[in-house]
Amino acid sequence: MIAASDYYNFDDLLTSEEKALRMKVRECMEKEVAPIMAEYWEKAEFPFDVIPKLGSLRVAGGTIKGYGCPGLSLTGSAIATAEMARVDASCSTFILVHSSLAMLTIALCGSEVQKEKYLPSLAQLNTVACWALTEPDYGSDASSLRTTATKVKGGWILDGQKRWIGNSTFADVLVVFARNTITNQINGYIVKKNAPGLKATKIENKIGLRMVQNGDILLNKVFVPDEDRLPGVNSFQDTSKVLAVSRVMVAWQPIGISMGVYDMCHRYLKERKQFGAPLAAFQINQEKLIRMLANVQAMVLMGWRLCKLYESGKMTAGQASLGKAWITLKARETVALGRELLGGNGILADFLVAKAFCDLEPIYTYEGTYEINSLVAGREVTGVASFKPSASSQRSRL
Amino acid sequence: MIAASDYYNFDDLLTSEEKALRMKVRECMEKEVAPIMAEYWEKAEFPFDVIPKLGSLRVAGGTIKGYGCPGLSLTGSAIATAEMARVDASCSTFILVHSSLAMLTIALCGSEVQKEKYLPSLAQLNTVACWALTEPDYGSDASSLRTTATKVKGGWILDGQKRWIGNSTFADVLVVFARNTITNQINGYIVKKNAPGLKATKIENKIGLRMVQNGDILLNKVFVPDEDRLPGVNSFQDTSKVLAVSRVMVAWQPIGISMGVYDMCHRYLKERKQFGAPLAAFQINQEKLIRMLANVQAMVLMGWRLCKLYESGKMTAGQASLGKAWITLKARETVALGRELLGGNGILADFLVAKAFCDLEPIYTYEGTYEINSLVAGREVTGVASFKPSASSQRSRL
Amino acid sequence: MIAASDYYNFDDLLTSEEKALRMKVRECMEKEVAPIMAEYWEKAEFPFDVIPKLGSLRVAGGTIKGYGCPGLSLTGSAIATAEMARVDASCSTFILVHSSLAMLTIALCGSEVQKEKYLPSLAQLNTVACWALTEPDYGSDASSLRTTATKVKGGWILDGQKRWIGNSTFADVLVVFARNTITNQINGYIVKKNAPGLKATKIENKIGLRMVQNGDILLNKVFVPDEDRLPGVNSFQDTSKVLAVSRVMVAWQPIGISMGVYDMCHRYLKERKQFGAPLAAFQINQEKLIRMLANVQAMVLMGWRLCKLYESGKMTAGQASLGKAWITLKARETVALGRELLGGNGILADFLVAKAFCDLEPIYTYEGTYEINSLVAGREVTGVASFKPSASSQRSRL
Amino acid sequence: MIAASDYYNFDDLLTSEEKALRMKVRECMEKEVAPIMAEYWEKAEFPFDVIPKLGSLRVAGGTIKGYGCPGLSLTGSAIATAEMARVDASCSTFILVHSSLAMLTIALCGSEVQKEKYLPSLAQLNTVACWALTEPDYGSDASSLRTTATKVKGGWILDGQKRWIGNSTFADVLVVFARNTITNQINGYIVKKNAPGLKATKIENKIGLRMVQNGDILLNKVFVPDEDRLPGVNSFQDTSKVLAVSRVMVAWQPIGISMGVYDMCHRYLKERKQFGAPLAAFQINQEKLIRMLANVQAMVLMGWRLCKLYESGKMTAGQASLGKAWITLKARETVALGRELLGGNGILADFLVAKAFCDLEPIYTYEGTYEINSLVAGREVTGVASFKPSASSQRSRL
Repeated sequence: MIAASDYYNFDDLLTSEEKALRMKVRECMEKEVAPIMAEYWEKAEFPFDVIPKLGSLRVAGGTIKGYGCPGLSLTGSAIATAEMARVDASCSTFILVHSSLAMLTIALCGSEVQKEKYLPSLAQLNTVACWALTEPDYGSDASSLRTTATKVKGGWILDGQKRWIGNSTFADVLVVFARNTITNQINGYIVKKNAPGLKATKIENKIGLRMVQNGDILLNKVFVPDEDRLPGVNSFQDTSKVLAVSRVMVAWQPIGISMGVYDMCHRYLKERKQFGAPLAAFQINQEKLIRMLANVQAMVLMGWRLCKLYESGKMTAGQASLGKAWITLKARETVALGRELLGGNGILADFLVAKAFCDLEPIYTYEGTYEINSLVAGREVTGVASFKPSASSQRSRL
Repeated sequence: MIAASDYYNFDDLLTSEEKALRMKVRECMEKEVAPIMAEYWEKAEFPFDVIPKLGSLRVAGGTIKGYGCPGLSLTGSAIATAEMARVDASCSTFILVHSSLAMLTIALCGSEVQKEKYLPSLAQLNTVACWALTEPDYGSDASSLRTTATKVKGGWILDGQKRWIGNSTFADVLVVFARNTITNQINGYIVKKNAPGLKATKIENKIGLRMVQNGDILLNKVFVPDEDRLPGVNSFQDTSKVLAVSRVMVAWQPIGISMGVYDMCHRYLKERKQFGAPLAAFQINQEKLIRMLANVQAMVLMGWRLCKLYESGKMTAGQASLGKAWITLKARETVALGRELLGGNGILADFLVAKAFCDLEPIYTYEGTYEINSLVAGREVTGVASFKPSASSQRSRL
Repeated sequence: MIAASDYYNFDDLLTSEEKALRMKVRECMEKEVAPIMAEYWEKAEFPFDVIPKLGSLRVAGGTIKGYGCPGLSLTGSAIATAEMARVDASCSTFILVHSSLAMLTIALCGSEVQKEKYLPSLAQLNTVACWALTEPDYGSDASSLRTTATKVKGGWILDGQKRWIGNSTFADVLVVFARNTITNQINGYIVKKNAPGLKATKIENKIGLRMVQNGDILLNKVFVPDEDRLPGVNSFQDTSKVLAVSRVMVAWQPIGISMGVYDMCHRYLKERKQFGAPLAAFQINQEKLIRMLANVQAMVLMGWRLCKLYESGKMTAGQASLGKAWITLKARETVALGRELLGGNGILADFLVAKAFCDLEPIYTYEGTYEINSLVAGREVTGVASFKPSASSQRSRL
Repeated sequence: MIAASDYYNFDDLLTSEEKALRMKVRECMEKEVAPIMAEYWEKAEFPFDVIPKLGSLRVAGGTIKGYGCPGLSLTGSAIATAEMARVDASCSTFILVHSSLAMLTIALCGSEVQKEKYLPSLAQLNTVACWALTEPDYGSDASSLRTTATKVKGGWILDGQKRWIGNSTFADVLVVFARNTITNQINGYIVKKNAPGLKATKIENKIGLRMVQNGDILLNKVFVPDEDRLPGVNSFQDTSKVLAVSRVMVAWQPIGISMGVYDMCHRYLKERKQFGAPLAAFQINQEKLIRMLANVQAMVLMGWRLCKLYESGKMTAGQASLGKAWITLKARETVALGRELLGGNGILADFLVAKAFCDLEPIYTYEGTYEINSLVAGREVTGVASFKPSASSQRSRL
C-alpha cells in the first residue's frame, strides 16, 4: 500500500503514529469513499453517509488538545488532510472548514464553557460546523467586512450577508464574524442552525469541489445571546492565529490532490496502450510524469517544513502564505499535466484526475488567492505592503 | 457591439459578408443562447430548443456548395464557429461534429445520390448527424481501428464499438468508419438512428462540454445497405481531407472561447471592486489581462492565416495540426488566467469563465491531442515520424 | 533561400518590393556579416567594417521620405530589421537606434534645415547617430528625467547624465533630451561628437548585444547652439510618435532572432545524431521544435498586423506596447527552447543560438520592459493607470 | 550574515559542523572571490589566484575519508558547493569536476597505491584534476564512446577525442575513459599533463561558466603505464556510483546560484527606486520575488532530502536524476525572474544576476541534460526505457 507518489520516502520523516494515521485514513478513503465520489460530485450533493466514517477516523479537531479532540501533531493532521484530498478534496475541505477553521476558532478564541459545550460533539462529527467570514463584496479584502453586530440587552443582533461559506447549508454551528457597531472592530459569534433570521442558500453551478455545499448566508436581525459571543475575537487580527494554521492545512490539500493524480497517472500509463505500446513508453509522457513526481516531492517537503516551523513555534504568517501560494501553483501545473496524460479519460470524473483538476481551482483561490498570499509574504520579506493600487489613476506620460 | 477582445481590429480583415455573418451569430448567441447555458451545462443535458435557432443562422454545411448548404468562405465558417464558442463551446462542438465532420464527409466522399438525400435536411438542422471514428482502444491511434465491415448480399454488416462519439445519443444519421474485412482498409458508412443492433450510451461525468452528448456506441451486426456505403472512403487517407478542414474549424473554437473569456474579464475587472478600487486598477491583474488580450490577437491571426492558406489551396496537414496544437495551448493559458481574474466567481459556470475553463480541456485533447498534432507537424517539417516509441525497452546504460 | 521558419508563407503577405528587400538583407547578413559575428561578440567590440555594408542596403532612415532616405513601407522596414536580427541582433539594434530613434526624431521633430543638414549623411551611414533619453535613476520612469537645459545667449547649456545610450561611444550625432529649466518640460537637442563637456564611457560586462556600445554619458555644461535645438520637442509627449514607431521596429527584432534560432535548430536537429538517430527523431525534440515554429508564425503575424494598423493610420500606443511586450515574451520562450535543443553546442556563440539567447535579454527590457509595456496597454484598455504603487505602505490586516 | 534566501530556516536542519562550514565558505567567497569575478568572467579566464583560497577551505575531496581528504557529510559537501555557486558557479564547477568527478573516481575505483599517490595533493588543491568522458559525437549517449585503449607491453595506448572537459587545459591529472579494444568495455586511466600525444584546446565563445576552461582533447597514441589504469573501472556501469554522487553535487549548484540571485534581488529591490517608490513596492515585483523565494526553499529541501537518502544508503540513480532535472528547471525559472527584476542592470555581469542567468545554462545541460535525467528517472519509475526513438520512421497514417 505504498503509494508510487512517495518517491523520496517521505514516510521516513514521520513518526510511527503519524504513519499509522496516514495508513488508516488512506484505507478508509480508498475503500469507503472512493467508490461513491464520482456520483456525488456529478450531482453536486454532499454524501452525508460519509460523515460517520470520517468521524471514526478521529481527525476532526486536529491539533486541539482536550475536549474530546485528538490532539494530533500538526504534521499528523496535515498528512491526514492530504490522504483525504488524495481521494477526494471535497471531503478534505469539509473537514478543514469544520475543524481547522470553525473548531480551531472556538478552541483558540472561545471561553472554557464554549469549548466544553461545542467541541466534543464536533470532534465526533456528531455535529458539523462552518465558518463565516467573507461577504459578497469582501473576499480578498475580508477585513473590511460589513456585517454588523449591535449590542442589545442579553446579546447581539447580527445583520448582513456572507458568501461562499462551506458547509453552511446544513451546519449545526456557524462561527460568524461581524463588525461591532460600537468599537468598529471585528467580533466573533456562534450562531445555531435554525436561528430566526438566518438563511443559507446553496451556491449552484460550481465547477470544482462540487460536493462542498457553499452557501450565501442572509443574516436578518439574528439574535445571538451573550454566551455565544467568542470572547477571544476582538479585532480582525485575532483571526490570524487561526488562519496561520488553516493555511498550512489548506496547503496540504493540493499536496494530497497531486499525490492522487500522480498515483492514478502512474498506473494508467502502464496499463493503457496506443500504437502498440504502453503510454508509459513515450518520451513525452515520461517527461510529464517525472515533472509531476518531482513537483509532488517538493510540495510534500515544503508542507513538511511548514509543519516543523510551526511545531517549533517559529512559523510566521508570511511563511504560511508563501507555502500555500507556491504549493497551489505547483499543484495546478501537476493536475494539468495529469489531465493531459489521461487523454479522453482525463475529462471524466470517474478516473479521478478530471475531478482533481477541477477541485484544485477553488483551492487555488480560497483562503487567500495565490496573489493575496504572495503579497502577504511579499510584505513580510520587503517590509512594504502592496495590496492597494495607487489612489491616483492620473495618466502618466509613458 | 464591438467586442473588447478585437483589439487589433481583426474585423478589417473580413469581407462585409463575413462581418455580417459574425454579427448575426453573435446576436443570436448572446440573446437566445447565453441565458440558458449555465443551467443545461450543470444538468449535462443538450438544449434541444436551441437547434432551430442555430438552424436559422444557416451555418450548418459551412463551406459546402449546393445541396441546400450555405457555401461560406472558410474564413466565414471559422468566424461563425468562433462566435458560437465565444458564448458556448458545447453549441459550437455540436455544430462542428454535425457540419465539419459528418456533413463534410458526405459532401467529399458521398455519391451524388447520397448528397442529395442527406445534405439539405442536415443543412437546415432538421436532422442531426454524428461521426464515429474513435474506439475504446484506438484514440490517438485511430487508424488502427477494429470495427469491421463484412460484405454480405445487398449490403454490409458492421461489428464493433465506438467511443466518444459526439451527438450520437440522438443523431438521425451516423457516419461510421469500419475496416473492410476483405481489403483490410477503412471504409465509411451512413448508419441510421434505430438501426437494429445499434446502441449508443451516453458517457456520464464529463467535466467539460457537458451539454455535448458523447456516446459509447455498440454495433452488433448492424446491417447497412449498399446504397449507404460512402464510395469515396477507401482507406484511412480518405479521411484526411475532412480532418484538415475540421482541424481548422476546431482551432477556431478555442479562439472563440478565449474571446468570450477576455470580454467577460474586461467587464468584470472594471466593475468588481476590492480594497476600494476596481480590480482593473491592480498591476498584477492588468498584466494578466494584457497577456490574455495579446494571446487572443495572436490566436485570431494564426486561425486567419490558416484559412487564407486553405482558401489559396496551399494548406498542408502539418500547418493545420500546428495551428490546432498551438492555438489550444494558448487558449488553455488564456482561460486559466481568466479563471484567476474572476476569483471566487471564477468557479461558477454562471459567469461564463469557469465553464470556458472546463470546456477547453476536451478541445485540447480531441481531434488530435496537443501532442499528436505537434508530432504530425513535426513529421512534416523534419521528415521523420516519431509517434511510436522504440520497440526495444532494453535497459540503456545511462 | 526560403527559410524553414516561414512555415505559414508569410512572404505571400509582402509586396514584391518588400520581398526583394528581404532577400537582399538576408543575403548580405548571411554572406558578409554572419562569419565574423561570434568573434566580435566575444570581444564585445563593434565591427566597424560592417557599417558600409549595412549602408549599402539602404535601410537607414526606414520610412522617412526625402532627405536621401529610402521611404520604405513600415512593413518593409520591419522585415529588413527582422532579417538583420535573424543573423545578429547587435547589428539590428545598431540600425534601430540610429534610424528608428535618432533619425526619426530629427525627421519628425526637426526643422527643415536640420533635416537637410543631418539626414542625408545618416541615411548613407556616413555618419552615425544615437538617442539619449534614459538616465541612471530614470529608466522605466524616463519621463521624470533630470538632465537640464538652461537657456543662455545663442544657445543652451546641458547638464546631467545619461545611461545605456547605444552607439554613444562613437556616434557623430547625439539626440539628447533634457528638461528646460524654465518650462520644466522636456526639450530635444542635437549634440555633436567631441562637444566640450561631453563624455561617453562604454558600459562593460554585458551578457547580451555585446557588440552594441552602450555608454554612460556625462554632460558637463555642454553648449548647444540654438540652431541645434529640435523645435518639435516641447514636452515628453512629443517623443510618443517616435516611440510608437520604434516599438514596432523593436518588436521585429525578437521576431528575427526567433527565425534565426528556429532555422539553426531545424538544421542542427536533422544533422546531429545521438543514440544512433538524428535528434529530429526524438519526440521531446519534435514537440519543442514545433512550439518554436508556431511561436514564430504567431510573432510574425502580430508584427505584421501592427504594421498594417500603423500604415492605415489606426495604430494606438497601447497596440504597439502590447505587441512589443508579447512578442518579446514569446521570443524568450523560443530562444530558450532553441538553447536546450542544441545541448552543449547551445552554449557556444559560434552556433548562433547561444548568442541569440543572450541578445534577447536586453531587448526584453529596453524600450519599455515587458512589464511597463503591459501596463501601457493595460492603461489603454482599462482606462486606469497602474504604474505607481500606493503611496501608503501602511500594514493592511490580511 | 544570515542570507535573506534562507526563509524557511534551512540552517536548523544542519549540524553545527555543517553550519560552520557553510559560514566559512560564504565568508571566503564574499570577501575574496566576489570582487574579482566579473572581470575574469568577462575575459573568460580562470582566476588561478583563487585556487589556494579554495584549497584552504578544505572542501576538495568532499566525502572521501582518509588520504588527506576532509571526509565531510554529503550534506556538508553539498552546502559548501551551494555557497560557492551562490557567488560564482565557475568556481563551484571547477571544484566539482576536480573533487566529485575526478577525485571520487580515484577514491572509488583506484588502487590503494593510486589513492595514496594522488589524493592528498589534490585534496590540498596543490594539483588539479579533470575528468574526461564525453566526446564530440557522444554527449547524452556517452556510454557509446569511441576512444580506444589498446593493451601494449607495460601499459596501454589511448587514441581518440574528448570534448567539453572542464579544467582540462591546465589540469595536472586527467581521469580518462576509453574502450578496451579486447573486452569492448569501458576502462579508466589516469593521464598526466604533458603526456606525449595529449593535447587540450580551450573551447572559446561560451556564454556561461566563462571562467571554466573546457577543452577539446586529442589523444594521439598516448601511452599510460599499467600502474595508472584504474582497476575498479571495468565497464560503463562502474561510473554510476560516481555519477550518482556528482549529480547530487551538481544539483546543489543551481540551488546556490538561485540563493545568490534571490539575495541580490531582495537587496536591489529595496534600494532601487522608480516612480518615486522602491521597486519592492510594486505588486508585480513582489509576486516575482516571492515566486523566486519559494522556489529556493523547495530546491533546498529537495537537495537536502537527496542528501539524506544518500546518507541512509537508500538513494537510487533515478532519485538523483529527478532531483538534478527538477532543481535545474526551477533554477532556470528563478534566475530568469531575477534577471527581469534587475531591469537594465540585469544584463551586466557586475550585478551577479546576469552572470548567474548565463551560468545556469551549461548546468541545465551538463551531467545529463534536463531531458536525459528525466528519462533516467522515468525509466526507473515506469520500468520502460524511452531514450531511443523508434528505428522505423515509416509514415504513420495520422
